[in-house]
Amino acid sequence: MKVRIGNKVRECRTVWLQGRTVKMIDQPLLPHAFRIANLRSHKETAGSISRMTVRGAPAIGATGAYGIAQATLEFRGRDMKKFRAHMKSAEKTLISTRPTAYDLFHGTKTVMDSIKHSKSVKEAQGTAVSTANSYADWSATNCRLIGEHGGKLIKKGWSILTHCNAGALACVDHGTALAPIRDAHKNRKKIHVFVDETRPRCQGARLTAWELAMEGIPHSLIADNAAGHYMQHGEIDMVIVGADRVAVNGDIANKIGTYEKAVVAKENGIPFYVAAPSSTIDFSCSSGASIPIEERSQDEVLYMFGKPDGPLSMGMLKVRIAPKETKARNPAFDVTPAKYIRGIITEKGVLRPSQIKKLIPAAPAAPSPDDSIAQIDL
Amino acid sequence: MKVRIGNKVRECRTVWLQGRTVKMIDQPLLPHAFRIANLRSHKETAGSISRMTVRGAPAIGATGAYGIAQATLEFRGRDMKKFRAHMKSAEKTLISTRPTAYDLFHGTKTVMDSIKHSKSVKEAQGTAVSTANSYADWSATNCRLIGEHGGKLIKKGWSILTHCNAGALACVDHGTALAPIRDAHKNRKKIHVFVDETRPRCQGARLTAWELAMEGIPHSLIADNAAGHYMQHGEIDMVIVGADRVAVNGDIANKIGTYEKAVVAKENGIPFYVAAPSSTIDFSCSSGASIPIEERSQDEVLYMFGKPDGPLSMGMLKVRIAPKETKARNPAFDVTPAKYIRGIITEKGVLRPSQIKKLIPAAPAAPSPDDSIAQIDL
Repeated sequence: MKVRIGNKVRECRTVWLQGRTVKMIDQPLLPHAFRIANLRSHKETAGSISRMTVRGAPAIGATGAYGIAQATLEFRGRDMKKFRAHMKSAEKTLISTRPTAYDLFHGTKTVMDSIKHSKSVKEAQGTAVSTANSYADWSATNCRLIGEHGGKLIKKGWSILTHCNAGALACVDHGTALAPIRDAHKNRKKIHVFVDETRPRCQGARLTAWELAMEGIPHSLIADNAAGHYMQHGEIDMVIVGADRVAVNGDIANKIGTYEKAVVAKENGIPFYVAAPSSTIDFSCSSGASIPIEERSQDEVLYMFGKPDGPLSMGMLKVRIAPKETKARNPAFDVTPAKYIRGIITEKGVLRPSQIKKLIPAAPAAPSPDDSIAQIDL
Repeated sequence: MKVRIGNKVRECRTVWLQGRTVKMIDQPLLPHAFRIANLRSHKETAGSISRMTVRGAPAIGATGAYGIAQATLEFRGRDMKKFRAHMKSAEKTLISTRPTAYDLFHGTKTVMDSIKHSKSVKEAQGTAVSTANSYADWSATNCRLIGEHGGKLIKKGWSILTHCNAGALACVDHGTALAPIRDAHKNRKKIHVFVDETRPRCQGARLTAWELAMEGIPHSLIADNAAGHYMQHGEIDMVIVGADRVAVNGDIANKIGTYEKAVVAKENGIPFYVAAPSSTIDFSCSSGASIPIEERSQDEVLYMFGKPDGPLSMGMLKVRIAPKETKARNPAFDVTPAKYIRGIITEKGVLRPSQIKKLIPAAPAAPSPDDSIAQIDL
C-alpha cells in the first residue's frame, strides 16, 4: 500500500518478519501518527493481536504465521521433544488471542504443519520462516487477485459503500473489500466511496479513510446510521465488505453492523458483495450459526479515542461519552446470512454464496493458479 | 423528570419561562455536568435551538412557544404596527433555526395565533406568556398520555430498543419513546432497554442512558451497529422511537439511523413503534418525501465530544477521529416509510400509520380529552 510520510511516498506492507522481530504498522495510532511496532517475541506478537495493534482477518492470519516462525527462532537447544512442547504452547498462545477471524487459525496451522516432519530445530526454523514468508506473499497475491476479479464488477461513476476496514491494513497488502475499489480507481472509473465510521472502534473513520486519502480515492465519511439513508435515496450503487469467517453455506461473519447494511441493501435492491480470500473460509463450519462471536470490552462503547486539535499537543485521548452508571454490551462481529449476499469475491473468482462449498477439496496453503474458477457473471 | 444532583432528587422540566428568561437543561454538557442555561432574549433562545442546547421535537416546540412569549416581553412601546413587525421578525428568527422538527412551527404558530387579535402590546404580552405556558403544560400532558397508551403495549420481561433520545429531555417532560418505557417500569414489568448510542451526536449514550440511570431503569448501551445483531438473536422484543415530523400518510422523519432499525426490525418480525404527540404531525405534508432533511456540520462526524477520566480534570473535549484530508456528510434525519411502522403512539391512542389522516380535523392547540380515539389493538 502507498504510505505518505511527510513528502515521501513509500510502499509498505501491514506486517512482516525482520530477523527475529515481527514488524507491523501500529494501527491504533492511525490516522494521527504512523509508527512501526516491533514485536520481539511470539508472546508480544500474540499481544499485538489481542490489543488490535494489528487487526483484519488476513492480516492476523499472516501475523499468526509469523508468530509461529518467531517462536521457532526463540527456542534454545536441540531437544526436539522440548521444541515440540514449546511450539504447541506458542500455537495455543497465538490462537487464543481472538476467536472469530478464521485466518488466524489458517495462518498458524499452515506454518505448524510445515514443520511437522522437521528432523531438527534448525531445519524447523528455516522451514517455518520460509513458510511464513510464503504465506504472507500468497495472502498478498490473493488480495491482488480479489482486486482484479472484484474490480470488474464496478461500473464507471459508481458510489460504493464499505463498512469497517477491509483494506490493505486488514491484510498483508492491497485489502479485500478495498482491493476492487483500488482496482476501479486505477482504471479511472471515477468512483466515490461512502465510508461507514464503524463504531465502536471507528476502523472506517480511522483506517479506511486514511487508506483512501493516501491513494487519493474520493470518499465521504458517514455515521454508520447514515448508510441506509443514502441507500434509500439511490446514492449507493454497491456495497463491498470484508469477512472474518466464511461458512460453507455462504454465511459470513464480519464487523458488527455488516448484517444491518446487508438487510437494508437487499431491501433497496443494491448488490451486496463480500470480499474474502480462501484462507477466510472455515470448511469445518457448516453455517453462520456456529461461528463464535467475540464480545469485547464495554469500554470500547463507553469511551472514544481521538486526538484534540490545536494547541493541546497531547497525543491520543480517551474520552467518556456515557454516564458513569451505564454499562455497555459490545459484540465485535455479526453474521450475515448467505441470502443477503450477491457474491463472494475470492482470489479464485466471484462466487455465489452457494458455490463456496465447491472450494472444499481445494483449500490450498499456497496459490495454485490452475484450479481457479472462472469468473461468474452475477 | 427525576434529576439526581449530589444526594438530592428533584423534579425538573426540560425548558420553562421565568420572568423574561427562558431556562433549560444545558444538554450538550450531559451526562458529565448538570447545568441550567439562561436565555435572556428570543435571539439567545433561537441560538439555543440551533446550537442544540435544547433538542428533540416537542422540546423545541415548547422552546419556540416560549421564544415568542419572550419576544413580546422584549418589546418597548405601545405602537402595535411596530410590535407586529418585531413579532414577525422574532418568529422568523425562531423558525429558521432547524428545518425538520414540525413541533417548532407548531409551537411558535400556536403563540403567534393567540395574539393575532390582541388590542394592545400589554394584552399581547399577557396572552403570549399564558399561551406558551399552556402549550408547555399541554405538551407535557400529551407525553404522559403517550406513556399510558404505549405502556399497555409492553409485556412483562420485554427488552426494548430505542434510538436517539426521545425522552423527557426531548420534550417538556416524560418523553415520547421513553414515556411508555417509564410507564412499564413504574408498573414493575421488569423491562430492559437497549440504547443505541446514536452517532454522530450520541444522544443515546449521553442523554437516554442518563435519563434511564436517573430513573433506575435497567439498560445496556450498544453501538448503533449492534442493534441488528440483537434483533437477529431474538434479544429485542420491540422497538420504540420518537419522531421529528409525521406525514399524513404515516411516514415519519426521525434521527438518522431510524430507517435502518425499522427495516431490520421488520425483517425480524419485531414490532416497530413511533411515539409522537399530535404537535409532531404536519397535516400539510402528504408523505415523507416532502420532509426537509437537515444536513449538519461535518465536524459532528469527524470529531467526538467527551470527557477524559482521571487526573485530567478538564471539561469536555473534542477529539478528531478521522484523517485531516477526509470530508464527511452528515444528514441529521432520515425518513421511515409507514410500511415499516406497526403503530404510532399519540396522546389520543395508538394508531396505525394509515389512521393518522383521521386526526386532520382535530389538531387542537390544547388538550381536548373528549375527541380521544380509542386505543387500537395492534
